Amino acid sequence: MGRAIGVFDSGVGGLTVLRAIREKLPHEATVYLGDTARVPYGSKSPEVVARYSLNNARFLLQHDLKLLVVACNTATAHALPALQAALTVPVIGVVEPGAQVAAALTRNGRIGVIGTAGTIASGAYQRALEAAAPGATVFASACPLFVPLAEEGWTSGDLPRAVAERYLGALRGSVDTLVLGCTHYPLLRGAIAEVMGPGVTLVDSAQATAAAVAERLAASGDRETGGDPSHLLYVTDIPAQFPSIAEAFLGSRPEHVEQVDV
Amino acid sequence: MGRAIGVFDSGVGGLTVLRAIREKLPHEATVYLGDTARVPYGSKSPEVVARYSLNNARFLLQHDLKLLVVACNTATAHALPALQAALTVPVIGVVEPGAQVAAALTRNGRIGVIGTAGTIASGAYQRALEAAAPGATVFASACPLFVPLAEEGWTSGDLPRAVAERYLGALRGSVDTLVLGCTHYPLLRGAIAEVMGPGVTLVDSAQATAAAVAERLAASGDRETGGDPSHLLYVTDIPAQFPSIAEAFLGSRPEHVEQVDV
Repeated sequence: MGRAIGVFDSGVGGLTVLRAIREKLPHEATVYLGDTARVPYGSKSPEVVARYSLNNARFLLQHDLKLLVVACNTATAHALPALQAALTVPVIGVVEPGAQVAAALTRNGRIGVIGTAGTIASGAYQRALEAAAPGATVFASACPLFVPLAEEGWTSGDLPRAVAERYLGALRGSVDTLVLGCTHYPLLRGAIAEVMGPGVTLVDSAQATAAAVAERLAASGDRETGGDPSHLLYVTDIPAQFPSIAEAFLGSRPEHVEQVDV
Repeated sequence: MGRAIGVFDSGVGGLTVLRAIREKLPHEATVYLGDTARVPYGSKSPEVVARYSLNNARFLLQHDLKLLVVACNTATAHALPALQAALTVPVIGVVEPGAQVAAALTRNGRIGVIGTAGTIASGAYQRALEAAAPGATVFASACPLFVPLAEEGWTSGDLPRAVAERYLGALRGSVDTLVLGCTHYPLLRGAIAEVMGPGVTLVDSAQATAAAVAERLAASGDRETGGDPSHLLYVTDIPAQFPSIAEAFLGSRPEHVEQVDV
């Protein structure tokens, strides 16, 4: 394989980012690492998250990478500067691209962001939004049931809509733009869109990150424009439900999955 | 304070066990430790869970304990024998008492058990049920949304009932007894009972554990029969929502909460 885009996450959620990258950049080879043995990162200390992130990056750099994507909100919040300092390849996280897109799309400067309790408590999106859209009013809300809903595959019908209504009902009238600040949430996009209504623009961090990757590669002249690339998928543990969950997140059955120690 | 009952859990769930113990044994002093900084244990290796469990036990043993309760299914599955071997006080876990009660109550030998994905995958309840009720047929099912539902306080109404229907609908006709094999589930007892119907007996592990503690103290002559005991509550981290969650799990506002390193 030629030089690849490396992507890591604490688990399966980052597969939505991988999917967006593969759709946007169909000629790029990719290598993904899901640290499923140590998931979740959200409840771990910043120091531990930074150490695990460096482990993951070093594992991926055994392949010839042109760029590394941190497809995990917690790892982006706690380890992006450390990774950028330690590595010679460009490193892109998931927080800033979503914040930039939201800042560009809002009309009234009232932006919402939803994520896990850990991501919202870290304040990473709130800071990125305030930097990208100075003077904007930011509403942040944690939605703890969305991750297990997505992992169960309960993404359409009454149940996810009822959960979304409970979390988002109060936000509906307050914002014109809502950032999906968790890699699991694209699976619930339909239910979230129904509850927020047509007046609210949803910003998918995965899509925004893929766009940022495409821009970066175009700027450095590193973008592949032809060929049928290879895609490798590594995980640190293979839970029983992994194949079906991975397929739901990736949109297709993964071609190659290997369990590794990092 | 006199000799107390020590209780530890990976987080807040064990407060349902503490509550059952305090209701059943109102004259006993208690000391609780919730390892909220390192929660959840379910995604950690058995070796790490055993090490953390020994840490927790040693912290509690700085108090004068008459008995230690492991109010965490994962810690019971991975560390109970190690704790019993290492400590001189009696140690009671949450798995065996629930299995014993279910074995005594089933009429047709068809017993269900529900818990987190980690507890069900560990097989601890299945083994305990097969030992307590030889020849019984055991149905085990993981219910990942129940913990976040309980922690959100969404315990009554349409939403928990719809989630319970989705998890338990298929189990309804198969069992006459169902073990609530997770310390969070007593909060959802109403929704679970409605979905399972009046023909199914629910076994609350917290109640069963409290009964086992009472029996053990009675047998050794260590039971307090009078006095107004003190109750101490320690946690390794105090998350923002801790006071309201703790109140929901404990049934009353905790008198004393202190953050400690263990």
